[in-house]
Amino acid sequence: MMHDPQHRAVSRRNPLALPRREQRPSGNSMAPERWLLRKVHGAVGEPPLRICLWDGYGVGPEADELMIELRDRGALYRLLRHPKLAFGDLYSSGRLRIHGDLTRVLHVLIESMNTRAGKRAAWAGWFRRGRVRKGASLTAARGNIHHHYDLGNDFYDLWLDRAAMQYTCAYFESQEHTLEQAQLAKLEHVCRKLRLQPGQTVIEAGCGWGGLARYMARQYDVRVRAFNISREQLTYATDMAREEGLEGRVEFIEDDFRNIDGSCDRFVSVGMLEHVGPANYEALSGVINRCLRTDGLGLVHTIGRNRPAPLDAWIEKRIFPGAYVPSVAELMRLFESVPFSILDVENLRLHYAETLHHWLERFRTHREEVVRRYDESFARAWELYLAGSAATFHTGGLQLFQVVFAHPTNNEVPRSRGDLYQAPATPYRV
Amino acid sequence: MMHDPQHRAVSRRNPLALPRREQRPSGNSMAPERWLLRKVHGAVGEPPLRICLWDGYGVGPEADELMIELRDRGALYRLLRHPKLAFGDLYSSGRLRIHGDLTRVLHVLIESMNTRAGKRAAWAGWFRRGRVRKGASLTAARGNIHHHYDLGNDFYDLWLDRAAMQYTCAYFESQEHTLEQAQLAKLEHVCRKLRLQPGQTVIEAGCGWGGLARYMARQYDVRVRAFNISREQLTYATDMAREEGLEGRVEFIEDDFRNIDGSCDRFVSVGMLEHVGPANYEALSGVINRCLRTDGLGLVHTIGRNRPAPLDAWIEKRIFPGAYVPSVAELMRLFESVPFSILDVENLRLHYAETLHHWLERFRTHREEVVRRYDESFARAWELYLAGSAATFHTGGLQLFQVVFAHPTNNEVPRSRGDLYQAPATPYRV
Repeated sequence: MMHDPQHRAVSRRNPLALPRREQRPSGNSMAPERWLLRKVHGAVGEPPLRICLWDGYGVGPEADELMIELRDRGALYRLLRHPKLAFGDLYSSGRLRIHGDLTRVLHVLIESMNTRAGKRAAWAGWFRRGRVRKGASLTAARGNIHHHYDLGNDFYDLWLDRAAMQYTCAYFESQEHTLEQAQLAKLEHVCRKLRLQPGQTVIEAGCGWGGLARYMARQYDVRVRAFNISREQLTYATDMAREEGLEGRVEFIEDDFRNIDGSCDRFVSVGMLEHVGPANYEALSGVINRCLRTDGLGLVHTIGRNRPAPLDAWIEKRIFPGAYVPSVAELMRLFESVPFSILDVENLRLHYAETLHHWLERFRTHREEVVRRYDESFARAWELYLAGSAATFHTGGLQLFQVVFAHPTNNEVPRSRGDLYQAPATPYRV
Repeated sequence: MMHDPQHRAVSRRNPLALPRREQRPSGNSMAPERWLLRKVHGAVGEPPLRICLWDGYGVGPEADELMIELRDRGALYRLLRHPKLAFGDLYSSGRLRIHGDLTRVLHVLIESMNTRAGKRAAWAGWFRRGRVRKGASLTAARGNIHHHYDLGNDFYDLWLDRAAMQYTCAYFESQEHTLEQAQLAKLEHVCRKLRLQPGQTVIEAGCGWGGLARYMARQYDVRVRAFNISREQLTYATDMAREEGLEGRVEFIEDDFRNIDGSCDRFVSVGMLEHVGPANYEALSGVINRCLRTDGLGLVHTIGRNRPAPLDAWIEKRIFPGAYVPSVAELMRLFESVPFSILDVENLRLHYAETLHHWLERFRTHREEVVRRYDESFARAWELYLAGSAATFHTGGLQLFQVVFAHPTNNEVPRSRGDLYQAPATPYRV
């Protein structure tokens, strides 16, 4: 494999590739290292899982059903120095192994840190270090987005839904529904919240592979102008629109949200705000204010938090450079600077945990394919990211907010949300 | 009337009584006064209504269908010095008259100030001056609440709904519904958002005349402990509970929210936060955090804004001392300090405009009675307050937020809001 030029060409595309360091034989662990391991276990609230060193020395329950294993001396010291970043990197490179179900281990770990013991532990601050990010400049934004979304449509195509290629939270009206049903239900739920009427004009900021834009045009007969800075995604979106005969009704535009012009009856943005950064919220609200007609409605769908905090250092460095997840108060910078009137906020946190479980399951089905295209460390990194996100949503560390808003003087706003629930949003068959 | 001792005794209870100043004959208006009047008209965006002086000199449209009349020279100068405060005081004392429909005139005035012309006018800042209030101390809180709510149950009984004595925003599923139906629908909507189950315990902070507490106990078979610092209201609430045979299920407690103890499955507060003040939000969230079980749900119903701003100076001084109306970002101090997880925010702004129209109409039906009990200036002040609030909600200057929240780790939270809309919240008959 090492000499397969085909493989080398592909694996060069792995943006998560880490500098290779030789793993030296570590020998037996020493007393200070064992003391440090006990400290680490205490710092995360003494979770009911085993943490052990390369020579088998461990702390926590004797049963090794759920276990975190540090495979060499250097791994321990790296973890101590940059806990969050190292955890992800060491897992990706295989120097930190997790035994038992990955999501379950991360769940137990996070839950333990959230307990009283975890919060008050002597080293509790050690694992929580981080910094607040500023907004991305226009150039940095393109770099950041390419990093994540230009991995190749084929990659996401492996494990996202087959119905609308949605890389955002689905809406599970029932936990029995498939990912495809739930993603279409999400699109339908968003359209209902926007109270779309035939003939209206819609601007979408950050349209991904164009699933929502095409759904709106197809199901609600509106005209959509959808913006994105990822060329790969736009090529896919445009091809699909042509295939579906939607050319005249959906226009995909390769440009930054800051350059959006024209006017619209509805403004929608699903899963873009995470990449915008708080420093740019006012620029975005300026754009919306300029474009949205006085009697219009808008919707922003974004990952959020219960209180301000930096993004997980590893996610920020390896998965989503430049991303930031706002609390509701921070999110209000987007709406109160103009101001807009907040009509409706819904939190779909548990729906995102569900979505991530589906993604992880599908990802694993195609794991060999991923390793072939990228490499083992890339596959491990993505599994950690998906499992860790599922665990974080499930334990309440991340939220998913859908915010409906309007200009303050718009009295055509809906008086009730009952219309959203008159019929199921989920299609019977996909 | 002036010598009727009965009348004098009652009118002493009017907390809005202003120092009496003799109104001197003003003679003809002078050139500088006319210039100032034109400035005033420009400062409020040149609204399509006439503003005129005591001698008939006026600006704005010739037709005097909608007209504001300053009845003496001193009124003009007071208005110039303290515009917001003076407008209310001069109206109450009859030195500023409004011709045509009061709500309509205020609506036109506010709308004009909200326009581009109104915002950019040379003196635009003049009418908007104000200051941000701090939270009320425990002693001040009692004084503030007595000022407003101890006017006498009989007073509110004249013009609030007959079904539940609600002095907060109603919920009009149809504009055809009566105030009684809409207030019961509000109670039902709140109960549904709380997902009340028989046998649960509920703490209510700021229970008014106990309408919600009794409704919850009666309709949902829960046990309620309801807190309030207005003795008059509590006496009424307790009497009603006894009459309805709810003694064992509702307990009314005369105490400040800061002293709430015990634990509960549900925490609810409808229309209290406006009196709490941002400086005390953390104290309130501390109380909720202490009382609400880990699997509980909470709801806060409060007047809000699209962006931070001081309360109207006249309302703050004459009607609601110590009140403050937060923006969503400010409101988040209540939730992000603990933190809680925001599940659902609904804005019922237009429902409050509707509610206020009903209140004003009923108030006018009983105007003579109000004048008899208090005096003419009291009646005028309340009409201005009700009409002005209706106009402010209708023009988008105030919002009504219902916020549902939970502890961050509560995974028993509802996954959809569809259950709120399975049946009408409004009773067919009241």
